[in-house]
Amino acid sequence: MSEFESHLLSELTGPLQDPASDPVAPLQNRRTFLARTSVLTLAIPGVGAALAACSQSGSTTSDTTHQRGRDTSRHAAPGAHNSDSRLDSAVLKPGHHPGTSATGTATAGAANVAFHRWAPELPPLPTGTTQQIHFHAREAPVRISDDTVVGAWTFEGDVPGPIVHTRVGDTVEFTLTNDVDIPHSMDFHAAQIDPKEAFKSVIKGQSLTFRFKPKYAGAFMYHCGTAPVLMHIGSGMFGAICVSPREPLPPAKDFVLVQNEFYLADAANGTRASDYQKMLNTTPDLVCFNGRPNQYVKEPIRVKVGDRVRFWVVSAGPSHPSNFHVVGEQFDTVYLGAPPANAIHGVQTFTVAPGGGMIFELVCDVAGEFPFVNHGFGHGQKGAIGLMVVEP
Amino acid sequence: MSEFESHLLSELTGPLQDPASDPVAPLQNRRTFLARTSVLTLAIPGVGAALAACSQSGSTTSDTTHQRGRDTSRHAAPGAHNSDSRLDSAVLKPGHHPGTSATGTATAGAANVAFHRWAPELPPLPTGTTQQIHFHAREAPVRISDDTVVGAWTFEGDVPGPIVHTRVGDTVEFTLTNDVDIPHSMDFHAAQIDPKEAFKSVIKGQSLTFRFKPKYAGAFMYHCGTAPVLMHIGSGMFGAICVSPREPLPPAKDFVLVQNEFYLADAANGTRASDYQKMLNTTPDLVCFNGRPNQYVKEPIRVKVGDRVRFWVVSAGPSHPSNFHVVGEQFDTVYLGAPPANAIHGVQTFTVAPGGGMIFELVCDVAGEFPFVNHGFGHGQKGAIGLMVVEP
Amino acid sequence: MSEFESHLLSELTGPLQDPASDPVAPLQNRRTFLARTSVLTLAIPGVGAALAACSQSGSTTSDTTHQRGRDTSRHAAPGAHNSDSRLDSAVLKPGHHPGTSATGTATAGAANVAFHRWAPELPPLPTGTTQQIHFHAREAPVRISDDTVVGAWTFEGDVPGPIVHTRVGDTVEFTLTNDVDIPHSMDFHAAQIDPKEAFKSVIKGQSLTFRFKPKYAGAFMYHCGTAPVLMHIGSGMFGAICVSPREPLPPAKDFVLVQNEFYLADAANGTRASDYQKMLNTTPDLVCFNGRPNQYVKEPIRVKVGDRVRFWVVSAGPSHPSNFHVVGEQFDTVYLGAPPANAIHGVQTFTVAPGGGMIFELVCDVAGEFPFVNHGFGHGQKGAIGLMVVEP
Repeated sequence: MSEFESHLLSELTGPLQDPASDPVAPLQNRRTFLARTSVLTLAIPGVGAALAACSQSGSTTSDTTHQRGRDTSRHAAPGAHNSDSRLDSAVLKPGHHPGTSATGTATAGAANVAFHRWAPELPPLPTGTTQQIHFHAREAPVRISDDTVVGAWTFEGDVPGPIVHTRVGDTVEFTLTNDVDIPHSMDFHAAQIDPKEAFKSVIKGQSLTFRFKPKYAGAFMYHCGTAPVLMHIGSGMFGAICVSPREPLPPAKDFVLVQNEFYLADAANGTRASDYQKMLNTTPDLVCFNGRPNQYVKEPIRVKVGDRVRFWVVSAGPSHPSNFHVVGEQFDTVYLGAPPANAIHGVQTFTVAPGGGMIFELVCDVAGEFPFVNHGFGHGQKGAIGLMVVEP
Repeated sequence: MSEFESHLLSELTGPLQDPASDPVAPLQNRRTFLARTSVLTLAIPGVGAALAACSQSGSTTSDTTHQRGRDTSRHAAPGAHNSDSRLDSAVLKPGHHPGTSATGTATAGAANVAFHRWAPELPPLPTGTTQQIHFHAREAPVRISDDTVVGAWTFEGDVPGPIVHTRVGDTVEFTLTNDVDIPHSMDFHAAQIDPKEAFKSVIKGQSLTFRFKPKYAGAFMYHCGTAPVLMHIGSGMFGAICVSPREPLPPAKDFVLVQNEFYLADAANGTRASDYQKMLNTTPDLVCFNGRPNQYVKEPIRVKVGDRVRFWVVSAGPSHPSNFHVVGEQFDTVYLGAPPANAIHGVQTFTVAPGGGMIFELVCDVAGEFPFVNHGFGHGQKGAIGLMVVEP
Repeated sequence: MSEFESHLLSELTGPLQDPASDPVAPLQNRRTFLARTSVLTLAIPGVGAALAACSQSGSTTSDTTHQRGRDTSRHAAPGAHNSDSRLDSAVLKPGHHPGTSATGTATAGAANVAFHRWAPELPPLPTGTTQQIHFHAREAPVRISDDTVVGAWTFEGDVPGPIVHTRVGDTVEFTLTNDVDIPHSMDFHAAQIDPKEAFKSVIKGQSLTFRFKPKYAGAFMYHCGTAPVLMHIGSGMFGAICVSPREPLPPAKDFVLVQNEFYLADAANGTRASDYQKMLNTTPDLVCFNGRPNQYVKEPIRVKVGDRVRFWVVSAGPSHPSNFHVVGEQFDTVYLGAPPANAIHGVQTFTVAPGGGMIFELVCDVAGEFPFVNHGFGHGQKGAIGLMVVEP
C-alpha cells in the first residue's frame, strides 16, 4: 500500500462501526459507548495509524483539466493532523458532546439565530466561461424551524450550502478555506478529477483550489468527503451543483430541492447536534427539502398556469432516497441521466438515490395548490413536504 | 399565508415527529408518549391551530377538466373538524387504543370476519368513455391471514381498495362518501387536478365528487391524503388505478399487485390495529401483495405456457419500495414510464418507489411454478411472496 | 393446493415473523424468542405441515431447455426432511447458537483461516458453448477482515461464491452438491427455468443438475433459494453470474462487485455468526463489496489512464440496495437492462435493487485514486467503500 493509499484510507473509511454493538439497542450509557468506539478506532488495522492527507501549506492548486497528474500538494508531514483522530479529539474534549456535531463553534450564539426560508430558485448562469467560487467550511447554528436550531457543519454557514449553477464545458474554479478545527474537504459529483488531490482534506486556516469542466448536464450533489463521510454529510456539509447543457433546456421555472436527513441529539446552548450513532442506525428524526422541515408549506413555491416547472432534485441523504412526487400532478419528463437525453415520460414518482440527482419536469395545466413530497411517507412525514402554488 | 394554505398545512403535514424522541428506543410507556405527542402537536407552529378544509355540505363537485379554477367547495366554518385534532380526539378517547387505527368501528365484529383471497385480475375496461365510481371511507376488521385480523381504515371495506381500470382520455367521475368519524380523502396519482379541491378531506356523512381524464397510461397508486398521510396509508387506505393506453397493449394476462406494509399493535376484540410509532420507525411487521401475507402461495395465480403476463405493480408503502422479481423468469419488458414507450428489456429485478407504480411483463416459455417476490428479503420474508403457476 | 405447491410453500416462505413481536425491541431472552418462533412456525397454516421437495436420490437432472415439463425429480417421501424443521432442529441443537448460522461446520477451525482479498476481475469466457459448473454447499469460517471471522453458509467455501461468466445462448450445466445438514439450493437470476424443479432444495450428500441458456446479457445474482431465503442469503450463499451479449461489448477492464450485508452475532470458536433477528430488523453491522469491508481500500483495483472500466454490480442484499458511485468520476453509461441496449448516460449514482444487477461504465480520462462507494452512507460507512487507482 502506497503512502497515498494509506492517507486515503483514513480519508474515506473513518472508523468502522463496532460489529459487536447492536445498532438497534438503545445506548444505555454514552460514556461506555464512547470508550468502546475510541478503542475500536485504534483497534481497526490501518485506520488508527493512518494520517490524513491534509494540506499543510497556505494554498495549493490542483488543475486536472490541463495538467493531469501534476502533484501540486504538499504531503502530510509526520505528526500532521489525522481527520479521524481530530474528530476523536474533538468529540472527547471536555465540555463537548461526544459522537455529535456539537464541536467548536457549531452551537455558539444559537438563541440569536433567525429562521430564514431557503430560496429554492435556480440562480441564473454566470456570464463568461469561468466561474470562481470560494466556500468556507464553517460551524454554525442553523435555525431549521421556529423551535429547532441545529449545531451544523456547513459550507458558507448554511444548510444546504449555496447552489452552484454552471454549464457543460465551462470552467469552475473552486477554493475551499477551512475556518474550523475539524478537517473538511469538497467533493463535486459534477467533476471528473483526481479526488486524492482535489477532494482532499484541508485543515484549519488552510485553503485548497481546484478547477474542473463539467462533462455532463444534470442535478449533481456536492459534499464534504472527509472521513467519516457519513458524519460530515449528516451534519450539514452538502449542496447542489446544477449543470445546464450547452443547448439550453426548454424555458421553465427552475427550482432546486436538496433532500436531507437530520439525526438530532441534545446539545449545548439550546441547539440540537447531529448524532453519529443515529446516522449509523439510519433512523432520521427529520427529513427535509433544503434543510428545513415543511418550509415550503408555510411559504410555498409560486408559479403560474402554463408554466413548465423543472425541479433539480438532489438526494443528499446521507442514507435515504427521495421518492419524489407532486400531488395532483404527473411528470411529463424525468431525466434519469444527462438532459436533454435520458428521459422517461408520464411518471408519478421516481426514486433519486442517496448521493444522486435527477431532473423532474411538469407543465402546470391546472391552477391550484400542489404538494411535493417524498412519497416514502415514513420519511416524508418527518418534514419532506412542500407546496407549489399554481396561480391562474 | 392564505386561508387555503393554512388549511392545506394541516392536511398535508400532520404532527411532526418529536425530534427529541429516539425512534429506535422501545416505548416504555405509551401514556407518556401520547401525552408528549399531544403537546407537540399543539406546539408545532401553524399546525395545532389550523383547521382542515373539510367539506361541510352534503355533496360538492370539483370538475377541473372543464371548469378549471372554479371553486365549488364550501369552506370550513369556524369550529369545523380538524383532521389532526379529530385524530387526537379519537386516539385519546377512553376505551380506544392510542396512536393506532383502533378507532370507531375498525375492530368491531372481528371474530366473524372470514378470510378471502384478494382477486388480482385486472378487471376489463368499462364500456363507454365515462366511468362513475363511488367509494365509501369505512373502518373494518379485515382478516389478512387465518389468525390475524387487522382493524383497518379502508375504501369500500377492504385492503387494498377496489382496482380501478380506465383508459387515457376517458373520464373518471369519482365520489367519496365518508362513513366514519375521522376525516378522509382521495388522492389519485392518475389525475392532474387541483388537490386543494379534489383531494380535500371529507367529514362523516359528507360526500365529494370530482372528475378527471388520465393523461398517461400506467399503474398508479391511489390513497387517502388526509394528515397524517403516513397513518392513513399505513392503516389501509390505498389501492391501484390502472390506466390503459388508447392503443391497447399486446394481449396478456393482466394482474394487479399492490405491495403494502402492516405495522401492528394490539387492539380490542382480538384484532391488530395499525401502530403509528412503528410507521414512523419504518419497521413493518408484515409486507404483502394485495393486503395478505403470502396469499398467492396458498392460492396461486394461474396462467398457461405461451401467455404474456403483465404485472401492474404499485408500491403503496407507506415507506418501502417493492424490488419486484419473479423467480425462474426474467422480464422482457419493464415500463419505467407510460407504456407503450419508456421500456427497458431483460430485467431480473427493478425497484418500484413507494408511491410509485411500474408495469412488468414476461412471456411464459416454460411450465412450472414461479414465485414472485420483493427481493429486498428483509421485507419479502415478511409476506411479500406469491406464486404464479404456469400450466402446460 | 397441489402437492407441489405445498412443497414449494415451505421452500419459499419459511417461518413468518411473529407479528406480535416488536422488531425494534431488543431481545431480552433468546430462549423465549425461539420457543415462540418454533410455535409460530407450526401455527402458520400450511407451513408447519409442508414438507420440502428435497431430492432424495443421488443425482437428478432437470433439462428445461430441451425437455420442458419433464419431471425428473424424485418426490419427497413421507418423513423426508423439511427445510424449515431442519433449520429449527439445527438452531435448537444443544451447543449451537439459536437463530444464527452457527450450525454444523460453519465455525470450525476459524482461528486458522487466513484473510484473502477476493479477486474482482471478471474471468474470461470459457471456450466452447457449454460450460459445466459444480458447486458444493458448504459451511465455512470466512475471515472478512484481520479481526473478524464469519461462520458462513457458502457456495464453494467463500463469500461470495465464484463468479460465473457465460454468454447469451450458451449452455450452463450446473450441479449443486450439498455437503451439510441444512438443505440448500441454487437460484440463478440469469435462467428462465422451472424453479420447482431446478431450484429445489437438496439435502446432505445429494446432488441436483440442471441446464439453462441465458436469454439476456447483464449482471445477475445467484443465491440459495431455500426457506427462509433471507437467512440463506444473509448467511453468505450468493454470488454473480455475468452474461455477455453475443456481440462483445467494447473492450474494457471488467470488474465484478457484489454488495452484501452482514448481520453478526456472537458465536463459538471466536467467529461471528449471522443473526436472523437482525436480518428481519434490516439493521446490518457491515455492508461490503465482495464480502470483506473496505478490502479494496487496502488493496485497490488498478487500471490505467485511457481504460474503459466496466463494473458488473450485483446487489445481493439480502435487504438493501447499492447506490453505486465512483468519487471523482461519472458513468458515461449505465445499463438499466440488457446491454448493449437499455443504457442511460452521464450518471453520478444509480440504485441497484436488492436482488438486482446493473452494469456501470466509465472511461479513465484522469490518473488518480477514485473511491467507489455505496453512497447511501449509513451503509457505505459500514464497509462498502473501495478504491480504484488509475495509473498514468
